[in-house]
Amino acid sequence: MKVALDAMGSDAAPSSEVEGALAALAEDTDFEVVLLGLREALEPFKKEIGEAQGLALVEVEEAIGMHEAPSEALKTKTYSSIARGIDLLKRGEVDAFVSAGNTGAVMAFSLFTLGRIKGIQRPALGASFPTPSGHTFVLDVGANVEAKPVQLRNYAVMGRIVMEKIFRVPQPRVGVINVGHERGKGNQLTQEAYGLLEQAPIRFIGNLEGSEVFRDKADVIVTDGFTGNVLLKVCEGMGEAVLSTLHTTGKKYRWRSWFSKKVFRDFISGLNYEESGGAILLGVEGSVIISHGRSSAHAITNALRLASFTVREGVVDAIKEEFSN
Amino acid sequence: MKVALDAMGSDAAPSSEVEGALAALAEDTDFEVVLLGLREALEPFKKEIGEAQGLALVEVEEAIGMHEAPSEALKTKTYSSIARGIDLLKRGEVDAFVSAGNTGAVMAFSLFTLGRIKGIQRPALGASFPTPSGHTFVLDVGANVEAKPVQLRNYAVMGRIVMEKIFRVPQPRVGVINVGHERGKGNQLTQEAYGLLEQAPIRFIGNLEGSEVFRDKADVIVTDGFTGNVLLKVCEGMGEAVLSTLHTTGKKYRWRSWFSKKVFRDFISGLNYEESGGAILLGVEGSVIISHGRSSAHAITNALRLASFTVREGVVDAIKEEFSN
Repeated sequence: MKVALDAMGSDAAPSSEVEGALAALAEDTDFEVVLLGLREALEPFKKEIGEAQGLALVEVEEAIGMHEAPSEALKTKTYSSIARGIDLLKRGEVDAFVSAGNTGAVMAFSLFTLGRIKGIQRPALGASFPTPSGHTFVLDVGANVEAKPVQLRNYAVMGRIVMEKIFRVPQPRVGVINVGHERGKGNQLTQEAYGLLEQAPIRFIGNLEGSEVFRDKADVIVTDGFTGNVLLKVCEGMGEAVLSTLHTTGKKYRWRSWFSKKVFRDFISGLNYEESGGAILLGVEGSVIISHGRSSAHAITNALRLASFTVREGVVDAIKEEFSN
Repeated sequence: MKVALDAMGSDAAPSSEVEGALAALAEDTDFEVVLLGLREALEPFKKEIGEAQGLALVEVEEAIGMHEAPSEALKTKTYSSIARGIDLLKRGEVDAFVSAGNTGAVMAFSLFTLGRIKGIQRPALGASFPTPSGHTFVLDVGANVEAKPVQLRNYAVMGRIVMEKIFRVPQPRVGVINVGHERGKGNQLTQEAYGLLEQAPIRFIGNLEGSEVFRDKADVIVTDGFTGNVLLKVCEGMGEAVLSTLHTTGKKYRWRSWFSKKVFRDFISGLNYEESGGAILLGVEGSVIISHGRSSAHAITNALRLASFTVREGVVDAIKEEFSN
């Protein structure tokens, strides 16, 4: 198992990436990482990288900034860590690619170089949300701002495969985000998608309200990329606000230090989106994981772990098989 | 100041409503409540109602269920607590109407009986979200599942008025929910609305990501009713999940009882959406507050308080004046 890792992606690159890779290698001997980065950026980590087992280095000539237009980067940044990583994946030199960099650029290079799986009009980004009793996999969290009914149907099928393969949930329950439970509720998209979802090879449980994302009602939740992106980011922002509120309250009651040491750790691990490692780009011909720009080393380790699961459980092949029928 | 209160609205009706009204009357002597309910439902509270200062009773013949179709209710339930309450408002016998009942039915009767303010194509539901440093007012949280660009512009102007009048924020910052900050990001709606928002009589600060709802970036946030409804309900669901996680963690560390008594109260009051009392229906010719179906007595008291602010600060007249130009 060999995973290419964009060392220039996160806000704390390449420190998060180097440390995250070392931690992932330490816990799994059947695992190799190919780190793609600028020579000068990786220079301070030369010794650690040289001593690590299973860590290879590919020097690249440029990096893609977080705010560069993906269409422009696709044309001009062909020697970047993202372009080169996707190339390695295309040529079969690695099994997966992980980046915490420019999401649009990773998607653009993935689409251009790897291509779409036949039968999938648009790839989707899928992310897992923690619930009190497990996980819910939500897609699309932002690959396409608009969706057609058939896309929601295809997201549902891909989400089912991820839940079955990676999370080992048999016959996952699939719902669609809407403003009410009744059939006929919602906007044009959700109204038209309902019938297609009923006919799809999934266990469709109908409409779900936003409040049910965390209530263990469904294993897979589909929505358009605009709503999914807002949903993902609102949860992120609310998680931060909760932690900040707890911190302030803790200070007031003078149990801050004890609380932060013992309880915060448990509490955070249940809520923190870094635990999931990132989103899977589903529908392209290869295993691609896109992590949060603010990824810590811990988040990168989890992203590498997610990449490894995606490859080992044959998610891409399972999607290809499903859509070849 | 006289407010009509639907006693048949909440899941715990009429108990939440009666207790909530009594608490509101106890704290403000310049306040009267007209309770609209079925005789048999209010029978157990007869004594309390009879003894209360400023509490009048209007017996109605029927109630509208949470799952009744609003269009059907509008035709058949003309003697319901919602229909009668809106009638009292239309005739000027009360200054505002509050209901924790069927949102669609309250909107339907409001539109039919009170009518739209001239210049407003569609009314919007606006709700305030707590942030670490205050409040953000989000609209539309579900009055219309689809929106046109001009509607987002009008939501923004109405939101500005609410923030200025009720929350006393001068020149409130107005943002639009989107998937990224850059102009040109987003779906067709947000792309087309951008220019209209720039031209509107508001302090437009541009696109906001979902994570910024809780970051005190904007005082008013506009979005279509589908996204806004999902946003509101996801926060509600996540708040519940957070409380449940804290409860479990607290149990584990054996500080549950102490924690729940002292800290929970502070913590909950910062996060709980019941504190805001409900959503304001903006753009109709009258002050109408729609509360959550799960409203407690405390939430009803806050809804009555919100109704009183809406009337005292002249929100409806200010909107009429703004849109008469």
